[in-house]
Amino acid sequence: MSNSSAAALLGGFTGRERLVAQLMFIVEAEKLKTVLRRTRLLDRSRVENDAEHTWELALMASILAEHSREPIDLAKVLKMLLIHDVVEIDAGDTFAFDKSAVLDQAERELLAAERIFSLLPDDQTLEYRQLWDEFEAKETSEARFANAMDRLQPTLHNFLTDGGTWRTPGVTIEDVNRRVAPIAKASGSLGDFIDELLDIAIREGFIAVT
Amino acid sequence: MSNSSAAALLGGFTGRERLVAQLMFIVEAEKLKTVLRRTRLLDRSRVENDAEHTWELALMASILAEHSREPIDLAKVLKMLLIHDVVEIDAGDTFAFDKSAVLDQAERELLAAERIFSLLPDDQTLEYRQLWDEFEAKETSEARFANAMDRLQPTLHNFLTDGGTWRTPGVTIEDVNRRVAPIAKASGSLGDFIDELLDIAIREGFIAVT
Ligand SMILES: [Ca+2]
Repeated sequence: MSNSSAAALLGGFTGRERLVAQLMFIVEAEKLKTVLRRTRLLDRSRVENDAEHTWELALMASILAEHSREPIDLAKVLKMLLIHDVVEIDAGDTFAFDKSAVLDQAERELLAAERIFSLLPDDQTLEYRQLWDEFEAKETSEARFANAMDRLQPTLHNFLTDGGTWRTPGVTIEDVNRRVAPIAKASGSLGDFIDELLDIAIREGFIAVT
Repeated sequence: MSNSSAAALLGGFTGRERLVAQLMFIVEAEKLKTVLRRTRLLDRSRVENDAEHTWELALMASILAEHSREPIDLAKVLKMLLIHDVVEIDAGDTFAFDKSAVLDQAERELLAAERIFSLLPDDQTLEYRQLWDEFEAKETSEARFANAMDRLQPTLHNFLTDGGTWRTPGVTIEDVNRRVAPIAKASGSLGDFIDELLDIAIREGFIAVT
């Protein structure tokens, strides 16, 4: 639905400004269901969208939390992951291996963060904007683990779909190594697993090595 | 992808039995992206799937936690929500207003829970099965709040899409009142909001009152 009709319907609830602001944010975020990524479902039937991608990352974080090198506050990791891609409603999904699109990605996403988190009540605008900034900065244990999940998921999907986006013309093993580096930073066991996985992927011809 | 090929690829990692079991569970759960619900996206372009539905519930729980009547452990609510629908991989989504399908729903879902949570390492089979049982029993503050989110989300979608599944032939205001009852149990403010929302929905002709 358009924002204006949701705004009109929800704006009709007087004396509930705080709840209405929270719901307006949720209604806006819901558009992530229509933002498409390059990664395919494991059954290869179609590409995934940001909403279902985000759910998978959150599930992974919940199941794999014990693999973090450092202690993490799981609630914080999950809250961070649940909103980490909302900027893509305005900025679109930037394909990780598209070097020119990555150039102005930060600027486009910053404008989107300003607009979208402002829908929330002021204290939550601050809280969720800080969580998003923290995810982007990758400087806390929670942000490092959340980013590791964001890199592990497409890596696992590519591995289980004969290479997936690794087969995009121009993508090399150096590009892939750069993408997966945050996994080993957050987790020794997941980093070792990914090393082994990429060896198999190269042997299987899923990734170009020249 | 088929389970057997994921199992073959992941089974090749020796000395990583625990991590492989965790990933096999995630690979199985990923099928929720293909389990369709009756609820439409807010832009009405299509029905949503269980994976994106689950993300929206988790986001709602994160943003709306302050509305709980009782103190809640948010990490527990989120972990519970992230897995609450995995049984639908085997059992399918049971349409809430289909009275005959609801009859054998519990039995079908119990078998699915047995199979799917068993993919995890033993300690996590127990942990996640207990979380799922707790969600189903609705007897703790976390389960009550998680269930409230599961009822609030389709209610909000129906309201913002001119009635949505409320317009299914045979669905009455009594059916709808029964479906939303868990919201007021978990939250006074959300319960009051839903009362007001349903009054508007009836006035707008979104729900049959006779
Ligand atoms: Ca459900």
